[in-house]
Amino acid sequence: MKQEPYAFTIEMDVRDYECDMQGIVNNSVYQNYLEHARHVYLKTVGIDFKAFTEKGINLVVIRAELDYKSPLKSGDRFAVGLNMVRESPLRFAFYQDILRLPDWKPVVKARIVGTSLNGRGRPEIPEELDRLMVNPW
Amino acid sequence: MKQEPYAFTIEMDVRDYECDMQGIVNNSVYQNYLEHARHVYLKTVGIDFKAFTEKGINLVVIRAELDYKSPLKSGDRFAVGLNMVRESPLRFAFYQDILRLPDWKPVVKARIVGTSLNGRGRPEIPEELDRLMVNPW
Amino acid sequence: MKQEPYAFTIEMDVRDYECDMQGIVNNSVYQNYLEHARHVYLKTVGIDFKAFTEKGINLVVIRAELDYKSPLKSGDRFAVGLNMVRESPLRFAFYQDILRLPDWKPVVKARIVGTSLNGRGRPEIPEELDRLMVNPW
Amino acid sequence: MKQEPYAFTIEMDVRDYECDMQGIVNNSVYQNYLEHARHVYLKTVGIDFKAFTEKGINLVVIRAELDYKSPLKSGDRFAVGLNMVRESPLRFAFYQDILRLPDWKPVVKARIVGTSLNGRGRPEIPEELDRLMVNPW
Repeated sequence: MKQEPYAFTIEMDVRDYECDMQGIVNNSVYQNYLEHARHVYLKTVGIDFKAFTEKGINLVVIRAELDYKSPLKSGDRFAVGLNMVRESPLRFAFYQDILRLPDWKPVVKARIVGTSLNGRGRPEIPEELDRLMVNPW
Repeated sequence: MKQEPYAFTIEMDVRDYECDMQGIVNNSVYQNYLEHARHVYLKTVGIDFKAFTEKGINLVVIRAELDYKSPLKSGDRFAVGLNMVRESPLRFAFYQDILRLPDWKPVVKARIVGTSLNGRGRPEIPEELDRLMVNPW
Repeated sequence: MKQEPYAFTIEMDVRDYECDMQGIVNNSVYQNYLEHARHVYLKTVGIDFKAFTEKGINLVVIRAELDYKSPLKSGDRFAVGLNMVRESPLRFAFYQDILRLPDWKPVVKARIVGTSLNGRGRPEIPEELDRLMVNPW
Repeated sequence: MKQEPYAFTIEMDVRDYECDMQGIVNNSVYQNYLEHARHVYLKTVGIDFKAFTEKGINLVVIRAELDYKSPLKSGDRFAVGLNMVRESPLRFAFYQDILRLPDWKPVVKARIVGTSLNGRGRPEIPEELDRLMVNPW
């Protein structure tokens, strides 16, 4: 399988405590992988999730869609690739794929829609995020 | 807010270790809540997830859609309500709502699509599950 | 087995996502159970972990000792019993037992030593905690 | 601080979902880090935890002692170093340190005592493990 062009890719290993009694990574754990990939990506482009939180700017997920294609198992290594897209004036989406290595077999395909809440809890995309995305609005 | 008619409802409390640095329950944890509610429901209707797994029958999630409406916080109590629906000959879906108590404020609305894999890894809905659902196929 | 006299007891159910590939509750999860029991106990005596954190008072664990006696499995119900003891002017300990129900079979026996850090990060037992414990110092 | 001589060392990064409302890695998560380091180490010396489990040989923890020295935070990188020691004919112990990078500041010092249960649930150290350890018995 060919790897799609991602804006950012990170590699990780399955840890045994992430596997459940079926011997595979538990469904909820993929959301952990996806979140970690998003936060590391944001950091590489200058957005520190923790610093934002401390300033009262909360990046929040408003919708998650995950298609489970095949499970990861103990001992597997995998990549998370992502692209970030502006979906509307106040929303952005991460298109994220989890792919098993070294064969790039699809594990999870996800679309994670988010927004940013300012200090008064109102949606407002901070300039640092705005700059990252092609913005037709 | 009025409570919708659910086939099954379970109440739980937020545990502090489930909250992240934003002071709210981490996104992935809601999938834990939803899974627990499904497994307890299935047990009440005679389907033991663990016994199925040991027999080589794996109930698996193939798609998850979660709409995050408002976050749960430390100290919150909540209910998970669910309905199970046959979606196609080999697929079923759980429509699940997480609602804060006592005001029934919507927290997460989810649609979790699953199937069942038999001992040879092929989709096959076991009779015990089939019986639970209205089945036009 | 007879139940020991605890200052506080809470009952919980094993959730399937807490079980690992050995089909038993993963070792680290018992620390989650123990923490949850401590926080609920503290709340019943007027100490809200979250409110403390927001005031800059951090209750922290400085040592954990856990003896694993027998594992919990999918479907098990259990109790966590605890007693809180002053260990020194700046330290307190929770003696906590996890016991399977309904036979009170010992699962984990733990000693969790903690202190409290004030807003400047220095150990200082707040009055609300001090009052809870017999204090020979 | 000087690094001690460990039989095995692995480096990892804190993931934001591992941090709790105090903004630091939750106490139970360090047990996840320690377990992962043990399993990777065992694999490098030819012992696959999952393959053992499937053969009915269960490596189990019977006691865990953790001294929490200083917390890890969002963005921190750290190393887990370990040494494995035979403690008695049927017990072994991992001495494990978690150290923040790049300054090697001690985070957690742990002693994890384990045994191995054979297919009948009786303690028995398999030859592959026995070979790893200096054995005065």
